[in-house]
Amino acid sequence: MDYQAVINRIISEANSFLGKGKIADYIPALAEVSSDRLGIAVNLVDGRTFKTGDADIPFSIQSISKVFTLSMVVGAIGEDLWNSVGREPSGNPFNSLVQLEHEKGIPRNPFINAGAIVVTDRLISLYPRPKEAILDFVRSIAGNADIYYDTRVAISERENADRNMALAYFMKSFGNIHNDVEMLIDVYCHQCALSMSCSDLSRAFLLYANRGVNPQNDVRILTESQTKRLGAVMSTCGFYDESGDFAYRVGLPGKSGVGGGIAAYMPGKLAISVWSPELNNFGNSLAGIEILERFTTDIQRSIF
Amino acid sequence: MDYQAVINRIISEANSFLGKGKIADYIPALAEVSSDRLGIAVNLVDGRTFKTGDADIPFSIQSISKVFTLSMVVGAIGEDLWNSVGREPSGNPFNSLVQLEHEKGIPRNPFINAGAIVVTDRLISLYPRPKEAILDFVRSIAGNADIYYDTRVAISERENADRNMALAYFMKSFGNIHNDVEMLIDVYCHQCALSMSCSDLSRAFLLYANRGVNPQNDVRILTESQTKRLGAVMSTCGFYDESGDFAYRVGLPGKSGVGGGIAAYMPGKLAISVWSPELNNFGNSLAGIEILERFTTDIQRSIF
Amino acid sequence: MDYQAVINRIISEANSFLGKGKIADYIPALAEVSSDRLGIAVNLVDGRTFKTGDADIPFSIQSISKVFTLSMVVGAIGEDLWNSVGREPSGNPFNSLVQLEHEKGIPRNPFINAGAIVVTDRLISLYPRPKEAILDFVRSIAGNADIYYDTRVAISERENADRNMALAYFMKSFGNIHNDVEMLIDVYCHQCALSMSCSDLSRAFLLYANRGVNPQNDVRILTESQTKRLGAVMSTCGFYDESGDFAYRVGLPGKSGVGGGIAAYMPGKLAISVWSPELNNFGNSLAGIEILERFTTDIQRSIF
Amino acid sequence: MDYQAVINRIISEANSFLGKGKIADYIPALAEVSSDRLGIAVNLVDGRTFKTGDADIPFSIQSISKVFTLSMVVGAIGEDLWNSVGREPSGNPFNSLVQLEHEKGIPRNPFINAGAIVVTDRLISLYPRPKEAILDFVRSIAGNADIYYDTRVAISERENADRNMALAYFMKSFGNIHNDVEMLIDVYCHQCALSMSCSDLSRAFLLYANRGVNPQNDVRILTESQTKRLGAVMSTCGFYDESGDFAYRVGLPGKSGVGGGIAAYMPGKLAISVWSPELNNFGNSLAGIEILERFTTDIQRSIF
Repeated sequence: MDYQAVINRIISEANSFLGKGKIADYIPALAEVSSDRLGIAVNLVDGRTFKTGDADIPFSIQSISKVFTLSMVVGAIGEDLWNSVGREPSGNPFNSLVQLEHEKGIPRNPFINAGAIVVTDRLISLYPRPKEAILDFVRSIAGNADIYYDTRVAISERENADRNMALAYFMKSFGNIHNDVEMLIDVYCHQCALSMSCSDLSRAFLLYANRGVNPQNDVRILTESQTKRLGAVMSTCGFYDESGDFAYRVGLPGKSGVGGGIAAYMPGKLAISVWSPELNNFGNSLAGIEILERFTTDIQRSIF
Repeated sequence: MDYQAVINRIISEANSFLGKGKIADYIPALAEVSSDRLGIAVNLVDGRTFKTGDADIPFSIQSISKVFTLSMVVGAIGEDLWNSVGREPSGNPFNSLVQLEHEKGIPRNPFINAGAIVVTDRLISLYPRPKEAILDFVRSIAGNADIYYDTRVAISERENADRNMALAYFMKSFGNIHNDVEMLIDVYCHQCALSMSCSDLSRAFLLYANRGVNPQNDVRILTESQTKRLGAVMSTCGFYDESGDFAYRVGLPGKSGVGGGIAAYMPGKLAISVWSPELNNFGNSLAGIEILERFTTDIQRSIF
Repeated sequence: MDYQAVINRIISEANSFLGKGKIADYIPALAEVSSDRLGIAVNLVDGRTFKTGDADIPFSIQSISKVFTLSMVVGAIGEDLWNSVGREPSGNPFNSLVQLEHEKGIPRNPFINAGAIVVTDRLISLYPRPKEAILDFVRSIAGNADIYYDTRVAISERENADRNMALAYFMKSFGNIHNDVEMLIDVYCHQCALSMSCSDLSRAFLLYANRGVNPQNDVRILTESQTKRLGAVMSTCGFYDESGDFAYRVGLPGKSGVGGGIAAYMPGKLAISVWSPELNNFGNSLAGIEILERFTTDIQRSIF
Repeated sequence: MDYQAVINRIISEANSFLGKGKIADYIPALAEVSSDRLGIAVNLVDGRTFKTGDADIPFSIQSISKVFTLSMVVGAIGEDLWNSVGREPSGNPFNSLVQLEHEKGIPRNPFINAGAIVVTDRLISLYPRPKEAILDFVRSIAGNADIYYDTRVAISERENADRNMALAYFMKSFGNIHNDVEMLIDVYCHQCALSMSCSDLSRAFLLYANRGVNPQNDVRILTESQTKRLGAVMSTCGFYDESGDFAYRVGLPGKSGVGGGIAAYMPGKLAISVWSPELNNFGNSLAGIEILERFTTDIQRSIF
């Protein structure tokens, strides 16, 4: 399989699905990104790497960071986490709060905001310096010591965090948040502001394709079983209310962010990440999903 | 891999998870089934078959039939179906009606009752004799001309169908049901009353493991792409509000029924079905899920 | 108080709030009504009557009929009804079904459709010929033997009753409907199609102003306590999701219908009814509410 | 009417409904109150006063304070408030958050917590020293300069305010909270901790019975129209999810608090308040409602 040829051809055809989405604009720092940014990176577990377009330009990974914090917490406390966060898809977004109320403050899964906030809360309980710990982890699996938070984005997130503050206080009223809410949301806004390129993300997601072993240094970070299970959660919950459709069209476990990035992987084979800032109605990169659908069609593989 | 040894060992250990669930009792005909029934059948795409326990005793397949009617309709009208039925997991069950209202009568996926009723409605529009057509299809893919409806179960279902009548009329009020509601629910109650054994179900599910080609006669029924997509829907929506957990623990596309049956498959490899009537709190076979988890652990394979 | 002068002045100023609403058009028979119809009738408990405009032209009273069937059932079975129907305002209309599900098939009050259907179901259990019984009751309290069902409207309602069929089957699944659903909805569609004028309605509502005694013949129909309580239900639930606002602006117990009618009363004093077919966003007569607000302002009385 | 005899007889029979409810225990300071406290005070607009039992012992008025802050804000900014807070009953309590989301942060009425928090937010915008302003207002209408906040209760409320913090941040995310959330919830917790006796409350509620004129000094505080409208809101929304039932059984506008107090009034006639700390399932004083039902039955008056 000539992966370079595949991604080159896909990117050459990408104009047809640019200009149809909408850049996230809830914070100014995200709204400023150029809408025609487009990058693809593919990393194979055998070590080969392929990339095209803006694959080396860092962007705000936003919710993709939820996979990394979840990996840190699952690696540290294991199955106990699932007493505090469910792993079922969340259904209609407009029900998220009534769901939280109905389930006594237990979010349905770790990729909706409420669930990710609980995961970060547990991470804070584990690490005295949580923001540094997250950086260390991400740098380690991406093999890039230059990954940083985009502080301007983090501050902007913090200034627009009323809704996440509400979620955190609401869960705290049920006893499902253990740390100070102000500090928690500060850490959470920073993790969303992690700045990484497609190349960084593909290298990092090799961890999952490689069944839990960090391919940068052959250190096992997650058990095979933990890795397989994170894959199941990404596969059923990774794309907001478009998760079922993503499984249907693409068929890979993965995670998207409102910065326009998507990272996904095929177990035992490869990791792929795409960046295109324009979002569809579900908040996922419009071109990113098209590109991944073409990619799995071209290489004739998916998990199904 | 000695599959026979694997399923023999699993069934020998099964006592530990019997007696902990509850047989479906909303209709008398289901409540009468003996709670210690237990069968496993495995069919490989290479033609080998393995079975143990009560694998050849027919039981009421109930919601597993939704996969078959969906296959018939998708095979006939293709992607158009998805304008009338979504393919996203449904979230909390108690929200199903408010979801239908919010989405103007479009059910979230074809495996919740509302969605399966829409699929059967379309099937009625396609086949002048729908009940016969469903029998023909199921017999063809299972390679067993003796599959019938359990009429006693069908009648009992019909007498307890007020809620499904309500769903059908509700969707009809939005224009999403095209046929007479009384007839529609009659057909629907019959499909739920299909009586098949584990062996029947495993052979039938080979269709999906075999990427859309009927292994009984090498006739293509679904395109590769349609098959892959049905797999995605089973994977994200096949186990009611335990779908995410099933993906997490088992990692195979599949479908359960309240008769205690589960059918699942590994693409390109095999189909497996299990029958144990006691259900867990989500309405899935309690032992069935345990057995499938052990099976994928023992053979060290899942789609993730 | 010169009531005739008051209603004459109000109707002379009514042009300012005509042409701003929308006639109910979910069935053709209602949509044909002329939008500039406007009538007011006032009946005092002392026997005086006042009217203006189209006060003697019959129209489809629709949901106002729910007060009459409720009176019949409360008069016959008393407080027992309230085990099957609540008496709390219903909140957001889009939650009606999830509410029914949450409350195990008990509708929140007798004036939402689900509640009125339960009331009619009980009425059917009480009267062998329910449609005749309703006519008898209404003719008796309105003192008009010429009140009939508008059969054309009733048939049209029946043809568009999918949603009410859904509600009835849904409640039946919880055991809260006792009679055949087809027959029940037929009776319900007829009661909605009762054809009465403002004069008829005002005379009929004198029953409530007169504390339960039929002013036509001095026969007690409801106890004082029952009457007072029906007034409380009208006051909190009589105007769909505008009930609070109606209490706020008008301050009288009453009931509206999508035919554009409103009937209301002041305990011990008078009954008033208004007809103007154009509805506001809540499904209540737009001019009707304006007129009643001016009326209570002009006569400087409300229950508050 | 010998009001003293009426309330004496009612209190003498009150043992039959004591011991059946549950004292609010979400904060320690409330849980410590003696469950057999029982007081009644009645104030007529003509100046006569009647009281019995523990009518002069101050208790935590909790949500009854919402009537006072609402009166302050409506008196100052009038109808504009209703752009930010609705006046419809709220329906099922478990839907409060989904309702807020659906209505873009506009609470359904000023007596659910979300609505009362918006009212207090506006009060903070009006008064540089809001806690002092509330004290001044309440002292003025109750004619008692010794009314204070129970600081211990206020602190305890503040320590258990996670849910109210969540509500405030959630509404702020929609732009419907204008002041700092920490300060807002501090003021809100204080107003709930106002300590008043039945006698204080009855005197204060004479303001509403007296159509907006402070009977302590004949100063008009609310217009007649404003007063009438506050009565409508109390009548439809004053008793949580038991508002319809309270209208049905008692038929007076009023407001309850989880401290076990209820204040109500009959327009033009009298104000009455009751205190009994044991609550029913809806969070209203169990004996309080019974007593008020007997009172309106005995004096044969209600607004209906």
